[in-house]
Amino acid sequence: MAAPSPVSPLARPFPALGAVRGARFAVGAAGIRYKGRTDLVLAAFAPGTTAAGVFTRNKCPGAPVDWCRSVLSGGTARGLVVNAGNANVFTGRAGREATEATAAAAAALLGCGTEEIFLSSTGVIGEVLPHARITAALPALGEALSETAWEAAARGIMTTDTFPKGALRRTRIGDTEIVLQGIAKGSGMIAPDMATMLCFLATDAALPAPVLQALLARGVAGSFNCTTVDSDTSTSDTVLLFATGAAGNPAVDDADDPALAPFAEALDSLLLELALLVIRDGEGATKLVRIDVGGAASDESAHRVAMAIANSPLVKTAIAGEDANWGRIVMAVGKSGEPADRDRLSIAVGGTWMAREGTVVPGYDEAPVVAHMKGQELEITVDLGLGDGRGRAWTCDLTHGYIDINGSYRS
Amino acid sequence: MAAPSPVSPLARPFPALGAVRGARFAVGAAGIRYKGRTDLVLAAFAPGTTAAGVFTRNKCPGAPVDWCRSVLSGGTARGLVVNAGNANVFTGRAGREATEATAAAAAALLGCGTEEIFLSSTGVIGEVLPHARITAALPALGEALSETAWEAAARGIMTTDTFPKGALRRTRIGDTEIVLQGIAKGSGMIAPDMATMLCFLATDAALPAPVLQALLARGVAGSFNCTTVDSDTSTSDTVLLFATGAAGNPAVDDADDPALAPFAEALDSLLLELALLVIRDGEGATKLVRIDVGGAASDESAHRVAMAIANSPLVKTAIAGEDANWGRIVMAVGKSGEPADRDRLSIAVGGTWMAREGTVVPGYDEAPVVAHMKGQELEITVDLGLGDGRGRAWTCDLTHGYIDINGSYRS
Repeated sequence: MAAPSPVSPLARPFPALGAVRGARFAVGAAGIRYKGRTDLVLAAFAPGTTAAGVFTRNKCPGAPVDWCRSVLSGGTARGLVVNAGNANVFTGRAGREATEATAAAAAALLGCGTEEIFLSSTGVIGEVLPHARITAALPALGEALSETAWEAAARGIMTTDTFPKGALRRTRIGDTEIVLQGIAKGSGMIAPDMATMLCFLATDAALPAPVLQALLARGVAGSFNCTTVDSDTSTSDTVLLFATGAAGNPAVDDADDPALAPFAEALDSLLLELALLVIRDGEGATKLVRIDVGGAASDESAHRVAMAIANSPLVKTAIAGEDANWGRIVMAVGKSGEPADRDRLSIAVGGTWMAREGTVVPGYDEAPVVAHMKGQELEITVDLGLGDGRGRAWTCDLTHGYIDINGSYRS
Repeated sequence: MAAPSPVSPLARPFPALGAVRGARFAVGAAGIRYKGRTDLVLAAFAPGTTAAGVFTRNKCPGAPVDWCRSVLSGGTARGLVVNAGNANVFTGRAGREATEATAAAAAALLGCGTEEIFLSSTGVIGEVLPHARITAALPALGEALSETAWEAAARGIMTTDTFPKGALRRTRIGDTEIVLQGIAKGSGMIAPDMATMLCFLATDAALPAPVLQALLARGVAGSFNCTTVDSDTSTSDTVLLFATGAAGNPAVDDADDPALAPFAEALDSLLLELALLVIRDGEGATKLVRIDVGGAASDESAHRVAMAIANSPLVKTAIAGEDANWGRIVMAVGKSGEPADRDRLSIAVGGTWMAREGTVVPGYDEAPVVAHMKGQELEITVDLGLGDGRGRAWTCDLTHGYIDINGSYRS
């Protein structure tokens, strides 16, 4: 295992999260892979808590993803067990046995059925998860459950992450005040085609599971699914949202109910904040880059162009070198395979248009662009000049740090 | 511009190329971007030479690609002008004017129409090509044309390449001996969805242009289009094949004529050798990796899975670290989106099966795998266990050298 990486220069301090009534956490050290740190998180939810989940589209998902997909159909949740250090992926029958044993132990502890226990694992692929260490550690966590252990939980699920990630929103449903907060982890193998590595959210809102699922799916589409570190989609990507109902808001049974608009907006914004925290901790990242594509044939097309730019190693190394290399952006637009007309293409960096309608802007002033490239948060804007489609993506730069981390860490 | 990179550890010596009767080359220094080296190549072909070409699928191709596509419909060639240092891409009207002026100068020099002149440019994107330097240099090249300047031509088209690339085949059409040889350049922005950066081939065979085109397209599909350095498809990828007819072989008018089988085989093999030379010179490469995928739902599906593995930054950094990290291979199979069943998947490295049917082989001997990973030429084999589809891809590892080169070189 490589030495721990230095904290990302793009890190953000962990915010002051409060409690979400009905959601409690506890953290322990099960020694699954790491020594001298926490690696196991247990969450307990009040009876009646509803659940929604979005998972990786990778065709070789881990056993815990299979488990969550299966139990999610029930729509309710009483517990969540997350471990770091071993992803329980590509472990065959042993992987399924590990999920069954872990869920049974958590269900016994929390007094519920296994179909109300959610599971998530992150870390090495292909090694059998020593689940006996988890089940042995769980009872002590059951004693320690607390509504205020959010930051500890965020630390307990880290792998190559260099800082813990959390975010908070306060909103309303009707006249009822609602709290919505979450934690996430992720640093490499980040090209979520559904979700990032792991993200867990809880709210005290009272919402039926189908409504929660619809809101979460929309929110993930506009946040995690628009981000990439390295184009590699993990086998374990999982976003789970639990609604305890403790707020006692008026009943809502349609995701499109106008009463839910502030909540949906808060959820979208929370998901985006967490997704960007993951990109800020992208392996080796020194710059956070937002890519806006307009003038596309459709929104879907704009999204794919933005992701092609965000995933291009040549664009990302140029950004690392603080080179506003719009030639590589042209290349990435063209390689996306989406409708594009070279002679209508315009490109701006940091708001300065460098190229318009297929050629460099004569005598453009490079000074503001050079200054912008030296910053930590960069903006690239592309206008395809074809239609009204718009899309946005976020990525980080590709640096020596990425090679250092991934040439030695077995993940 | 970065300091020149050291020669790739995977380099191969330039072979002893002979003459292809009817094809002559000359090389000069036009000072387009580089100082103290050749950067301009002129080729002249005998009257009656037929031509075939395959070009980038990037939607923002360079002006020379547009030019070649346009003149290729004539099916004959008398000349070729190639420059290094400036790709003449994303240069708008100025780019078209540069191609017209260059073709006119070459046509005047060679006594033919502009529609028999092919053009190719490689280097920086987005800067206007100073074509007057090319047209000023051409007359001296016209005086120097020689049938034996192949290696000089291979050197004259290099950009970030660290060694010149050429290959040779001798074959037969009927009883007639045929020579077939080519040169290539390319090192980064290599994910040819059609061809690599630049590859030029000539043969003394007498073949109609449609036959030549059919053979070239098939050969490129099985060679350049199965290779990747960094997943970034260039705007300038071009493979051109010229057949001078000097061999005087019996007429053949069908690409599927059995008399062409040895020639087609030689062409396929030549294209693959040149494509692999490009991968051997992949930016920062220290290892050449072949990926064989079998048991897929179809050959196309196997190809896409092989390319997903070949393009994965996590697989490529693991290879750089000499880590037989099959967990990342599982991830890459799954992210390809192709049909895959985790529990039927088997993976071998260097012929040693590490994982079978969805789980690690119990107690497999890691020693031969570790030894294989330390070599320069690696083999990864994946069996999806689903059907009969097979595919193969080649790539290189992802190292600090790639970051060094691309964090500073403006391409």
